Amino acid sequence: MALYMLGLEFTPVSSVVPAAAPADLGTLLHALLLRLYPICRSITGNGVRQTLAILREQLPNMVVHEVPSGTPALDWTVPPEWNVREAWIKNAAGERVIDFRNHNLHVLNYSTPKQGWVPIAELREHLFSLPAQPDLIPYRTSYYNPNWGFCLSHNQLQTLNEAEYEVCIDATLDPNGSLTYGELLVPGEVEDEVLISCHCCHPSLANDNLSGMVVVAELARQLSERPHRLSYRFVFGPGTIGAITWLSRQTPDGLARIRHGLVATLLGGDGAFTYKRSRRGNADIDRVVAHVLRTGGYAHELRDFIPYGYDERQYCSPGFNLPVGCLSRTPFGEFPEYHTSADDCEFVQPAQLVGSLALYERVIEVLEGNQYYQNLSPYGEPQLGRRGLYQAIKSQASPREAEMALLWVLNQADGTHDLIAIAECSGLSFNVIREAAAQLLAAGLLAEKASALSEPPPFS
Amino acid sequence: MALYMLGLEFTPVSSVVPAAAPADLGTLLHALLLRLYPICRSITGNGVRQTLAILREQLPNMVVHEVPSGTPALDWTVPPEWNVREAWIKNAAGERVIDFRNHNLHVLNYSTPKQGWVPIAELREHLFSLPAQPDLIPYRTSYYNPNWGFCLSHNQLQTLNEAEYEVCIDATLDPNGSLTYGELLVPGEVEDEVLISCHCCHPSLANDNLSGMVVVAELARQLSERPHRLSYRFVFGPGTIGAITWLSRQTPDGLARIRHGLVATLLGGDGAFTYKRSRRGNADIDRVVAHVLRTGGYAHELRDFIPYGYDERQYCSPGFNLPVGCLSRTPFGEFPEYHTSADDCEFVQPAQLVGSLALYERVIEVLEGNQYYQNLSPYGEPQLGRRGLYQAIKSQASPREAEMALLWVLNQADGTHDLIAIAECSGLSFNVIREAAAQLLAAGLLAEKASALSEPPPFS
Amino acid sequence: MALYMLGLEFTPVSSVVPAAAPADLGTLLHALLLRLYPICRSITGNGVRQTLAILREQLPNMVVHEVPSGTPALDWTVPPEWNVREAWIKNAAGERVIDFRNHNLHVLNYSTPKQGWVPIAELREHLFSLPAQPDLIPYRTSYYNPNWGFCLSHNQLQTLNEAEYEVCIDATLDPNGSLTYGELLVPGEVEDEVLISCHCCHPSLANDNLSGMVVVAELARQLSERPHRLSYRFVFGPGTIGAITWLSRQTPDGLARIRHGLVATLLGGDGAFTYKRSRRGNADIDRVVAHVLRTGGYAHELRDFIPYGYDERQYCSPGFNLPVGCLSRTPFGEFPEYHTSADDCEFVQPAQLVGSLALYERVIEVLEGNQYYQNLSPYGEPQLGRRGLYQAIKSQASPREAEMALLWVLNQADGTHDLIAIAECSGLSFNVIREAAAQLLAAGLLAEKASALSEPPPFS
Repeated sequence: MALYMLGLEFTPVSSVVPAAAPADLGTLLHALLLRLYPICRSITGNGVRQTLAILREQLPNMVVHEVPSGTPALDWTVPPEWNVREAWIKNAAGERVIDFRNHNLHVLNYSTPKQGWVPIAELREHLFSLPAQPDLIPYRTSYYNPNWGFCLSHNQLQTLNEAEYEVCIDATLDPNGSLTYGELLVPGEVEDEVLISCHCCHPSLANDNLSGMVVVAELARQLSERPHRLSYRFVFGPGTIGAITWLSRQTPDGLARIRHGLVATLLGGDGAFTYKRSRRGNADIDRVVAHVLRTGGYAHELRDFIPYGYDERQYCSPGFNLPVGCLSRTPFGEFPEYHTSADDCEFVQPAQLVGSLALYERVIEVLEGNQYYQNLSPYGEPQLGRRGLYQAIKSQASPREAEMALLWVLNQADGTHDLIAIAECSGLSFNVIREAAAQLLAAGLLAEKASALSEPPPFS
Repeated sequence: MALYMLGLEFTPVSSVVPAAAPADLGTLLHALLLRLYPICRSITGNGVRQTLAILREQLPNMVVHEVPSGTPALDWTVPPEWNVREAWIKNAAGERVIDFRNHNLHVLNYSTPKQGWVPIAELREHLFSLPAQPDLIPYRTSYYNPNWGFCLSHNQLQTLNEAEYEVCIDATLDPNGSLTYGELLVPGEVEDEVLISCHCCHPSLANDNLSGMVVVAELARQLSERPHRLSYRFVFGPGTIGAITWLSRQTPDGLARIRHGLVATLLGGDGAFTYKRSRRGNADIDRVVAHVLRTGGYAHELRDFIPYGYDERQYCSPGFNLPVGCLSRTPFGEFPEYHTSADDCEFVQPAQLVGSLALYERVIEVLEGNQYYQNLSPYGEPQLGRRGLYQAIKSQASPREAEMALLWVLNQADGTHDLIAIAECSGLSFNVIREAAAQLLAAGLLAEKASALSEPPPFS
Repeated sequence: MALYMLGLEFTPVSSVVPAAAPADLGTLLHALLLRLYPICRSITGNGVRQTLAILREQLPNMVVHEVPSGTPALDWTVPPEWNVREAWIKNAAGERVIDFRNHNLHVLNYSTPKQGWVPIAELREHLFSLPAQPDLIPYRTSYYNPNWGFCLSHNQLQTLNEAEYEVCIDATLDPNGSLTYGELLVPGEVEDEVLISCHCCHPSLANDNLSGMVVVAELARQLSERPHRLSYRFVFGPGTIGAITWLSRQTPDGLARIRHGLVATLLGGDGAFTYKRSRRGNADIDRVVAHVLRTGGYAHELRDFIPYGYDERQYCSPGFNLPVGCLSRTPFGEFPEYHTSADDCEFVQPAQLVGSLALYERVIEVLEGNQYYQNLSPYGEPQLGRRGLYQAIKSQASPREAEMALLWVLNQADGTHDLIAIAECSGLSFNVIREAAAQLLAAGLLAEKASALSEPPPFS
């Protein structure tokens, strides 16, 4: 057997080598990233609104939802809307030593307003820096514990030696505001849905998660323009409270339509891909992504679900337990630029975005083609030769790969193995198996499992 | 525990070392092989008929079935009967440069008839050789795509330099002929059957599959002469269409009686044994053969089912899904003599046939003895001492192996573990476990699971 | 993730390093061992009675059962009561060359009485020694095959060169006697029971099994003095026949209350701990002990069940199949002192007893805390921040271990995972997981699975 097994691993070169993608796609994606980068986003506020407006330029059917502050959402409440006009620290000479205009990260995200002279000792309790990375500004938030503060490089912090500083955070926390998220349904032939979700609440962090937004927006745009079997639901919302708010507004029937899902995040940087399985551990999406990563020749890592991370935490909470994994490059906290000012538009390169997009496209390609079939001639092998499906002169131990695929599909298509399972047990690539299934379907030897003919005729 | 676990692995020396078998058994088996070798077999025709007639000399109860050409068989139709009288290629001088009388392989198996002068260019399209093995004649067939042709060594091919040759294939494809197969039921105490199947359609190939026929015929002869529990059904038929035709003529009840099965093939050559599991993967036959190979000290390899190979393809098609594996020596396509004139009676040695027979006998011995039992005294250990089953003076940490076997059988005999399972979990040999079960049965401590006393008495 | 996973393995230093235990606990345990050592025990008789009387000094609620000889017990019968007054071998000069007064092991345990002059050849058939350990007296028994005999060192045996010796075994085998065992129920909040069983039938062997008795008696004493959830049933009885007799006197309802069990034996010596799983293989007790051993930093070995060993053989017989494992140090037969006079009070050191006790206490601590919970807010994550359960300013990739534990418990508490399972899949220690469950229970976010609120509220 070993002979014909050799060399069959699927290597979709085009998706591994982003160079094969149109040169301008990378430029396009990166241009969008550059445009979104300067916006000051948070879990609520105009930053998110402005971001979604830009995405709607290419996704005109996306619906932007505004959920009033104070609305109950599962165990939570939609928080006040935060906006900030300016924020600075002035020294005795009236110079702005820290200024929000220089970098969005300078203000503690969701900071309460503050105005006045503050003694240096008190001020220090509201300043956040990274002693181990003294050049970088950290990203800090305080959503649910009212607090004010500034983030700055440790080098900057060291220079603050005056006795007191004038502080201004001209921010509003409006209890009559709203939380904003975008949602786009791209309908397919069937109602079964793939949920693709990415968080849009981080200000001026390119990898986390402008990279996810940019890749997903392009994916949504492409799917909108071509026919496909499954329906795709894209959610762009703030982390945690966005997913919770979205979930709180769904019906049980709507959630039941979600057959597969991915949280898309951290799709830039030069790291290998990482797939974190859904809580179920062996959902279709888990098997499909693992197959694509393995057979696609991607450097990658598979990890089991843990209840920490991005919005898969909410989708995979035990009451919902949706089949949603998280497909990223290097995970959060495992690269030095994470949650600092070094996560910028230089850190995320065009080719990385294009490579991530190609991987998502390949996953979708497999999801689209992955079905259950029933062999309609399950007693003995059907005679492939008279249907033109088999080589005539048998001479060698190893039939062509395409013939092996026909035999594998016929043998395994008993309604309990999907094509991915057949690809896995045969060692053949999904594409070859899917092509075989298509030929057998055309020859009347297979039925889709969902059809009326789901049971084989009895043997008598 | 480690102490008494050492050295317990079962080594049935007699079945490993064929020298222990009667010296003339090997001679006998090889003589039959030599006698069958010159016959020109195909999927239909007198060659198969003649072969089965020779086997009936030692298996007089074997029934030879003739199924008319044109009979539907599952998805197939029984093909016309092929016979060939002569076949040759003559040069301008009228010399036979290729002659079927010299080797059965010279004619494309199941070739259509052909007569006349053929230009060399056209002739070459009907000549098959092996450039990489220039001395050997290949074996080629064209069953379902009408074609004529010759097989010859590449060296021979190189010498054909004349402008045209006279060609004669005096063959018939009779639509009023029949397909021939042999079937022998050797009844046992119970109706549960072991199916042993081997293909008989290859001409002048000793390992593939005269070796299988010779070993299986001897096995059948021996079983006919001694009492046994299970019933054995032997099928000698042409590959693929033979199994399909046979399957098409069975009833669901008849197939349901098949509890275990083996496709017997490639039982010569000096390679290690290879067992290809049934499609079920963990059928009794799969566990039994694996146990015998492992504990018998055989060099061997276990492989998962794949839908390519011999007639296990048909038996394991998803509609039937019979528990049939394939037990061979080196598998097809993995030895250089495969499907060439080098697979001759020199390649298959007497001792190899005897060794293969011994392995099949051992598998049958274990199948015969492998049953489910119910401990009739399952509350606490029964007192073995007063039944004479246990040593009196307890002194050491390690009881005798035979005592451990008694304890293992009693502990595991809850109706869900067969003796093979108990042998596997205990690390003891099947023979020791079976002997323990026999002693416990005799002592009234066990019942066969199939008996009326299948449930233990309740504890009260 | 790797970052916060580091260093989380639970290391209960206090139970690993016995030095942390009160210095006098070791002395106390060893003193009890020394007091019990000289008593001549067997499967029946005054030795067991005397032993249990001493244990009752610290376990006054222990009930001592006397079961009359001749009473049926499952497949067995309670044997006659054995007592021995004196036993010796005198030479021609009237000197006692072997004397039971010197060592309990000198008499074959449960020996029939014998009186008179015996020729040396006949005598030798009743003498047991260890040629490979010539200094040591072996321990031998003959319970169910009436026989008389002496055990002696091989060196002693070599000196017996006279023609005949006078022999006296002044023993009684009273058919009107009884079998004695002790049983103590220490009730907890619930009726679910933990069975802890140790054999008390060996004379003058310190590790086998005074070590088990001493540790279990102390454990029972401590549990009697503090509140706990589960009920604990302690059985001190002779090996095999004691467990069988005890089992024969239980009701099905009583046995059904046994949710976990351990056979306690061989708890001295300097070997690593060994846990032999119950026949079920994955009972709660199997998972709990494995977790404690692994996370506690103990050198240890886990072994599958085999039907040989101590009284787990009876508890795990297929009719009962109780979830009872065996937790010891070096198993029987695997240390040279086993069943010889070298298994003495020097061989078992105080610190070893204290260490074994600590391990049992830790197992009990985990059993006590190991429950199933239901997340009462299973749709999305509940907002931990407003309940004071979560740090306010999110800055890093790795939350505190305590927060991870909250998330793990919430995510897995769907009524199918107990806390041990959550500890295992999270990689966090049981203590941290249990503390998280307690906090969530207090916050109203969890319910015990056994409570009325076992199903989460429906999502609508």
